[in-house]
Amino acid sequence: MITLTSDFGLRDPYVAEMKGVILTIAPNAVVVDITHEIEKFNVRAAAFALASSAPYFPDGTVHLAVVDPGVGTDRRAIVLQTKRGYFVGPDNGILDLAAESQGVQHVYQLSKQKFMMPRVSGTFHGRDIFAPAAAYLEKNVQPSEFGPEITDLVTPEFAKVKFSGGVLTGEILDVDGFGNVITNINEKEVVCLEGKTVNVELTHASLKIPFGKAYAEAILHEPILLIGSHGFLEIALNQASAAEKLRLKAGDKIRVAIA
Amino acid sequence: MITLTSDFGLRDPYVAEMKGVILTIAPNAVVVDITHEIEKFNVRAAAFALASSAPYFPDGTVHLAVVDPGVGTDRRAIVLQTKRGYFVGPDNGILDLAAESQGVQHVYQLSKQKFMMPRVSGTFHGRDIFAPAAAYLEKNVQPSEFGPEITDLVTPEFAKVKFSGGVLTGEILDVDGFGNVITNINEKEVVCLEGKTVNVELTHASLKIPFGKAYAEAILHEPILLIGSHGFLEIALNQASAAEKLRLKAGDKIRVAIA
Amino acid sequence: MITLTSDFGLRDPYVAEMKGVILTIAPNAVVVDITHEIEKFNVRAAAFALASSAPYFPDGTVHLAVVDPGVGTDRRAIVLQTKRGYFVGPDNGILDLAAESQGVQHVYQLSKQKFMMPRVSGTFHGRDIFAPAAAYLEKNVQPSEFGPEITDLVTPEFAKVKFSGGVLTGEILDVDGFGNVITNINEKEVVCLEGKTVNVELTHASLKIPFGKAYAEAILHEPILLIGSHGFLEIALNQASAAEKLRLKAGDKIRVAIA
Repeated sequence: MITLTSDFGLRDPYVAEMKGVILTIAPNAVVVDITHEIEKFNVRAAAFALASSAPYFPDGTVHLAVVDPGVGTDRRAIVLQTKRGYFVGPDNGILDLAAESQGVQHVYQLSKQKFMMPRVSGTFHGRDIFAPAAAYLEKNVQPSEFGPEITDLVTPEFAKVKFSGGVLTGEILDVDGFGNVITNINEKEVVCLEGKTVNVELTHASLKIPFGKAYAEAILHEPILLIGSHGFLEIALNQASAAEKLRLKAGDKIRVAIA
Repeated sequence: MITLTSDFGLRDPYVAEMKGVILTIAPNAVVVDITHEIEKFNVRAAAFALASSAPYFPDGTVHLAVVDPGVGTDRRAIVLQTKRGYFVGPDNGILDLAAESQGVQHVYQLSKQKFMMPRVSGTFHGRDIFAPAAAYLEKNVQPSEFGPEITDLVTPEFAKVKFSGGVLTGEILDVDGFGNVITNINEKEVVCLEGKTVNVELTHASLKIPFGKAYAEAILHEPILLIGSHGFLEIALNQASAAEKLRLKAGDKIRVAIA
Repeated sequence: MITLTSDFGLRDPYVAEMKGVILTIAPNAVVVDITHEIEKFNVRAAAFALASSAPYFPDGTVHLAVVDPGVGTDRRAIVLQTKRGYFVGPDNGILDLAAESQGVQHVYQLSKQKFMMPRVSGTFHGRDIFAPAAAYLEKNVQPSEFGPEITDLVTPEFAKVKFSGGVLTGEILDVDGFGNVITNINEKEVVCLEGKTVNVELTHASLKIPFGKAYAEAILHEPILLIGSHGFLEIALNQASAAEKLRLKAGDKIRVAIA
């Protein structure tokens, strides 16, 4: 099985070209789209989408992700081998959140031309380098055959959560299609707050928000804190957009009182 | 074969997470998207999309549909067994139009934890309850194994067509991507009008509209009545949006003179 | 393998209905979407998307494309047999760019009712005529069995490139989701310009633009000429929209100085 994540959109034929390349090399591959509607050049959003969904795929899955503002420069193309599968894409941090949580075992550079398209364009490595690599992995080519092992991966700067003076400081990773605001605060850090009303400081407001388990527990159009399906702290409204009402966006800081 | 219908959109990884769960349990399942662009929380639009497309899928298909404003409350999760296949989703009417037309044989509540994800979130039953149920049905688990039979299904209130004084009164089920206006008036009720010019009363206008067979029969940008591909009466313009020009939307009433 | 290209969008269940029809007739077919987000009624954009992606699919692939403003009129439904595969759709030019580049061998009209849905609607030949034809081709029905051979294909009027006085005059075929402007000028005609700075005359400006190999070679937000992944001359900005900044759209003329 091969999954695909990109910022290519579904209007242009780019995703189909990758699938054509994959199915020419590995005709029996099952190809599943994670999303191609990542905001253009937003590596963090892609890393988050991949990290959210990779846990639900079977062992041995090959995950191809490409949001690649540096395509055609000297940024490297890589494959990460983890305890559960493989990750293929540019060396710009897009693969790290997902791969780290599976336990990275080896990283190799994709440098062997025999595993690329005969003509590699300067603009579309998704089709010319990453798609063939994913297809050959699916056909049991060993990751070490693609090129030299490397140990100096580019590490993303997605913010870490800080704890100081009884307050957790995190940031907003993503706003989903429902307007739910997803933070980078892991459920382990806030499980103590379940059932309480919590002081939360946001960009434009300081609020007391109940910490519950389901959107529908909140009053209609009112906010609730809960652990989303990806294991991170979310701010949501019952049947309305929290991002819109509270004027929040990815990258905004959030402070949660623990004490 | 398993079909998926939801209001999750294609930007977020939710649909991919459902597919990952399904393909982990049933690796050979063929998964087909019906649509994930249903308007948020619009159960009627989802019921209509599913009813339109289910007839074109083979016997034995498992249809999973989830537009679920009540997720996390005590609304039930169900599987309907029909003469032609299976329908899985929340008990809020989303499955009824499609399942009724196939002949419902049994309805069971999805209550056995062994057929759910090990951890069921309060926010995403599509992934944690419905996706595994669909996958186990695909693997020939009998619907009666999922939980107790139930007989008090929630029935949707989608309007019925009335006939009085030579006039049919229906309502608009949906506006499609071309701006074609689809009513809940079945072709059987209006077949007598084919080839005639018909008096139609809409929200903002009373019009005489020709009843034809193809969009291109109408004058460019002018209205035509016809039976759409789903078997319902449609109002369309030739190469333009009827919904926009006539200011119509789902839920609006329509009156058609039969006499 | 069967690919699908249309202007149906992903919101309505039309694409799913085509897939249901295909998989009922040919349950083992692998169906790949090229795009369903073609601008409504824009046959040229669909022809371009299909021509861009068809080269990446394996021999024997069946390509179904349907942007069909004339549905329900007397325009013909056709199958083209090429040296590499099959193309199914309306006879309005949508298939030509892609099929010509593979070498067209025979063209047949789809006229045998036994290879159509039992009831053919006047509005949706994608589902009722083209989808079954593609599925039967996948099941090795010979194209000559679908109807009479024809030799008077409708030819699209997509502009040809002219060369006069040291200047190539072409037009813009498409603007992709990144705002990259794709012309109909083939790489063979401009390969001599690589590495140079080139005089380009556009709708709203005359510019000197460097001709490079990768988007990232340009100064941030500045223009570059290059050969896109489809083999045509592109105007792009580094991490911004060329179409927006230079106010260009499909159909606009472009003049490139060769001398």
